[in-house]
Amino acid sequence: MPETTADAPAFNAFSAHCPSRRLLDTIGDKWASLTIAALGVHGELRYSQLASTIEGVSQKMLTQTLRNLERDGIVDRRVTPTVPIRVDYSLTELGRSLLAVVCALKDWAEVHMPQVDAARAAYDAAARP
Amino acid sequence: MPETTADAPAFNAFSAHCPSRRLLDTIGDKWASLTIAALGVHGELRYSQLASTIEGVSQKMLTQTLRNLERDGIVDRRVTPTVPIRVDYSLTELGRSLLAVVCALKDWAEVHMPQVDAARAAYDAAARP
Repeated sequence: MPETTADAPAFNAFSAHCPSRRLLDTIGDKWASLTIAALGVHGELRYSQLASTIEGVSQKMLTQTLRNLERDGIVDRRVTPTVPIRVDYSLTELGRSLLAVVCALKDWAEVHMPQVDAARAAYDAAARP
Repeated sequence: MPETTADAPAFNAFSAHCPSRRLLDTIGDKWASLTIAALGVHGELRYSQLASTIEGVSQKMLTQTLRNLERDGIVDRRVTPTVPIRVDYSLTELGRSLLAVVCALKDWAEVHMPQVDAARAAYDAAARP
């Protein structure tokens, strides 16, 4: 499978009804990005470990994010039938293929925050009469 | 400026109140991604050209996206005082530093759409009683 779409891609996110646009929306979501990054850094994690790594994420949002990522084949959910039941999450092979991209996005935001802050201050100062 | 944050980063998107989390949300947004990708592919574009490249984007959403990206220092807005006024958008140097990451995210969605579709079908089939 080629890693680029230079030759007449079957999917094109510039097209309004292409399903890849919705997928782009899902994987670009900050909760999805942070979940993928957390599993990439730590490997297998339990729900409570994910919740404490991604500070401030609500239970509802983390549950929904994990379900979407599992359905999309990006995250694997492994149930161990102990008492209480133990559930571990990890990246699938497909998820690992996305990890570098997601981490690059997160890194970009962290590294370039000072430049973005400076740009915002300049924009807001210019907007003032 | 280092391109990674391996050594005690000043910003950390895992932290609930770190501004980089909000920035991650902004740059991961599909309209922002598609706008950055369009300007990366085509160079300078007018508003109407952007609107036709990013099929189906509403005027309100494109205007808001461009304003946010301009304020964040990612997109440059150049006004030529003709009649009618001509406005061109392009990536700033900061925006160009984000282009490869955003294109990698868009490419990933387009290239892996078949695997994601297959994963969804398997998930939905397993969920059926």
